Amino acid sequence: MKQIEGGITAVQGVRAAGVHAGIKAADAKDMTLIVTDTPATAAGVFTKNSVTAAPVLVCREHLSDGQAQAVIVNSGNANACTGEVGMANARQMAAATAGQLGIDASLVLVSSTGVIGQQLPMDKIESGIQTAASALSTEGGSDAAEGIMTTDTHPKSVSIEVEINGAPVRIAGIAKGSGMIAPNMATMLSYLTTDARINAETLQTALNRVVDDTYNLLTVDTDRSTNDTVLILATRRAGNTDIVEAAGENYEAFCEGLLFVCTELVKMLARDGEGATKLVEVVVKHAKNRDDAEKAARAVAESPLVKTAVFANDANWGRIMMAIGKSGAEFDPYQVDVWLADYRLVKDGMDAGYDEDKATGLFSQDPVRITIDLRAGDTEITMWTCDYSYDYIRINADYRT
Amino acid sequence: MKQIEGGITAVQGVRAAGVHAGIKAADAKDMTLIVTDTPATAAGVFTKNSVTAAPVLVCREHLSDGQAQAVIVNSGNANACTGEVGMANARQMAAATAGQLGIDASLVLVSSTGVIGQQLPMDKIESGIQTAASALSTEGGSDAAEGIMTTDTHPKSVSIEVEINGAPVRIAGIAKGSGMIAPNMATMLSYLTTDARINAETLQTALNRVVDDTYNLLTVDTDRSTNDTVLILATRRAGNTDIVEAAGENYEAFCEGLLFVCTELVKMLARDGEGATKLVEVVVKHAKNRDDAEKAARAVAESPLVKTAVFANDANWGRIMMAIGKSGAEFDPYQVDVWLADYRLVKDGMDAGYDEDKATGLFSQDPVRITIDLRAGDTEITMWTCDYSYDYIRINADYRT
Repeated sequence: MKQIEGGITAVQGVRAAGVHAGIKAADAKDMTLIVTDTPATAAGVFTKNSVTAAPVLVCREHLSDGQAQAVIVNSGNANACTGEVGMANARQMAAATAGQLGIDASLVLVSSTGVIGQQLPMDKIESGIQTAASALSTEGGSDAAEGIMTTDTHPKSVSIEVEINGAPVRIAGIAKGSGMIAPNMATMLSYLTTDARINAETLQTALNRVVDDTYNLLTVDTDRSTNDTVLILATRRAGNTDIVEAAGENYEAFCEGLLFVCTELVKMLARDGEGATKLVEVVVKHAKNRDDAEKAARAVAESPLVKTAVFANDANWGRIMMAIGKSGAEFDPYQVDVWLADYRLVKDGMDAGYDEDKATGLFSQDPVRITIDLRAGDTEITMWTCDYSYDYIRINADYRT
Repeated sequence: MKQIEGGITAVQGVRAAGVHAGIKAADAKDMTLIVTDTPATAAGVFTKNSVTAAPVLVCREHLSDGQAQAVIVNSGNANACTGEVGMANARQMAAATAGQLGIDASLVLVSSTGVIGQQLPMDKIESGIQTAASALSTEGGSDAAEGIMTTDTHPKSVSIEVEINGAPVRIAGIAKGSGMIAPNMATMLSYLTTDARINAETLQTALNRVVDDTYNLLTVDTDRSTNDTVLILATRRAGNTDIVEAAGENYEAFCEGLLFVCTELVKMLARDGEGATKLVEVVVKHAKNRDDAEKAARAVAESPLVKTAVFANDANWGRIMMAIGKSGAEFDPYQVDVWLADYRLVKDGMDAGYDEDKATGLFSQDPVRITIDLRAGDTEITMWTCDYSYDYIRINADYRT
C-alpha cells in the first residue's frame, strides 16, 4: 500500500469539481460535484438520527439499485427540518445535476450540510450545479474537498494505491468535519472513490465493516447530525479479479485499503474538531466483548471532564476511572491499568506511582494515546476524539453573532 | 406546605456541625457531622457507577437494617480507587465517629468527596471528627451545608413544614454540587432529615420515587461520580400517624413534601453547575412513555451544542431537533413543537416563523425553560441542567494548575 497524490480524482474514471455558488456568505467554495464516466457500483451509510434530512432520504432511494454516477453536495444549508418543500428541493438538486450530465436522476446522490430549518436557495443551487458541471476535471480532487467544508479549518483528502491479486487498485476519499460548529451541526460527510472491480452487495458489506471501525468510532461532542453520510463509488476500471463475495484474500486486501483511507480521514476529522488542540486516541484492551469495549472507550472519549483534562495536560486518571465505571462495561475496578502513551498511570485500579511532570510532558505527543486495559477479555478497540478547549465554547456559542 | 428556617437541624431530634479539619488546603469547612438524638429510620440511594468509592460500600452495609444515628462526611478527598486501605479508612471514620458519640459503628453512615486515588489523611479526619462532635448543635444546619461543599459557590439548604393527618412534619435537606470541578469529580451528595413517623421500608420507597424525579433528572455534564449519595434520616418525633405502607393520603403528603425539598435542591445544584450562567429546565410533553420522555429530555439537556447555544442566547432550534432525533425516542419529526418559555419556535417540526430578537430576550428569564411537545403519548418529564460557558472549560482544565 502506498499513499498517492490526487485525492478522489486519482481514481480512474472519476472527475470532480468544487465551486462557489453563493450559498455561504463568505467567498468560499460551497458546492462539490463528483462524477464517474459510466455508472459506478455504489454503497452508502447514513445517519441513524430519526430526524433525517431530505437529501439522506433521496440518497437511500437512489442507492437502492446499487448504482450511481454522480454526487452533488452543497454546504451552507442542511436542508433538514424542511418538510415537503425540502424533499422536492433535494429531488430537484438530483434532477438538475442529471440534466447537466445527460444521465438519469436516479443515478445522482445528493448531500447538504449547514444551517437547519431553512429552505435551500434553489436559484443559487441550480446555477452552482451548472458551474460545477462545466468545471469537472480529473484534477478536481482538491477543489471537491474544499466545496464540502463548513467550519473545517482545512480540506481533508486521502488517496492510496493497493495491490489486489497483482493489479494496482486505487482507493481515495474526502471528508468534512465533525467540528459541528457553524453553521449548526456536526454533519460528517465523506465521499470515497475506488476503481476496484467489486459488486454492489460486497461493496456495501465492506463499507459497513469499515465504517463501524472508523466513522462510528469518531466522537467530537456526542451529538449526531441529521445529515451524516458516507458514500462510495466504484468505477471498476482496475484490473483486479471481480470481488463478488465478502470473503477471501482479495476482499480482505480491499477492506484493508479502505480501512486505511477511512482511518486517516477520521484522524483528520478528530484533529480538526471544534476548538481541538489535540487528536486523542482512546484504546480499550482486553474488554469482555466488542460492546463493552465500545461502551468503555466511548465513555472516556465523550467525557467532558476527561476532555478538559487532556486540554490542560492533566493526567487526571480518576476521571478516566469514573468514565469507564459509568459506562456499563463489565470489569473489576481493581484489575484496571491505564496508560498515557507507554507510561502507566494506574495499576490495579490505583495510582501506579507515576511522575506528574513526566505525565504532563506526554500530553505534547501527537496523538495523545490513552490506553485502558480492563483485563476482562480479548477485545480491543480504538476510538478517536479531541480535547475540549475554550474555543469549543467560543465556536459553538458565538457563531450567529 | 411552608418553607421554614434552620435547614436540616430545623427537624426535631437533629443536631449537626460543619468544621475545618484541614483536609482541603483552603481555610474552609471540610467536615460535616449530622446526628440524631436516638437511632433514626434511614434510607439511601447511591451511585450506579461500577467504580464505587469505599464510603459508599460502607454506607450500603450500615444501612441494611434501615437504621442510622449519624452521618460523617469529609470533602477534599473522595476515598475512591483506594483499595483495601481505603475500605479500612472508611470503616475507621465510622468507628471514630461512633466512639465520640458512644454509639455502635453500624449506626454511622460515611461519605467522602474530593480528589480520587489518594488515601484519606486519617489523622486530620480523626481530629476533625472530635472537633465536629464537640460542635454539634441544633443550630448547626448551615455549618453542615458548608462542610460538604467542594467547588460549590454557595451552600445549598432547604427546609419545610407540611401537615400530615393534622400534625406538623418537617422535612429538610442539604446538598453539594454537581459542579464536578475541583478537586476532581461531579460528586453529588445530599442529606435529608425529617421528623415524620415512617417505617424504613416505606421511607426507602418514598426516597427512590423522589430521587427518580429529581436527582436522577439532574445533569450537568453527563459524568456520574463514584461517590454520589442521597441519605435520609427520620427521627419519628412528629405527631403524624405512623406511615407504614407506600400508599394512602399520608404517604402521598410525605412524598409531596420530600419532592419539594429535593426539587429545590436540584435546581440549586443545576444553577450552581460548573461555569453555569443559567438554570435550564427541559420539559418533554406527550412522550410515548417515561423511557422515551427521559431519553429525549436527556439528549437535549446533555447536548453540548444545545448548552452552548443557551449560553449564547441563541434560539438554535435545529440543535434541539438533532438532539431528540438521536435520542432513540419514538416520534414523528413533523409532529414536534418546541417552545422557549411560552413562545413557540418550532411548529410541526419546522420553523414556526418566530422573531429572533424576541427569542433572544427570553434567554434572560430564569429559569430558561425549553419545552418539547412530541405529540406521541401522555407522559411528561422535566430535567434540570445549566448552560456551557467558557468557565466550564476554565474550571475543569485549570483546577490543578
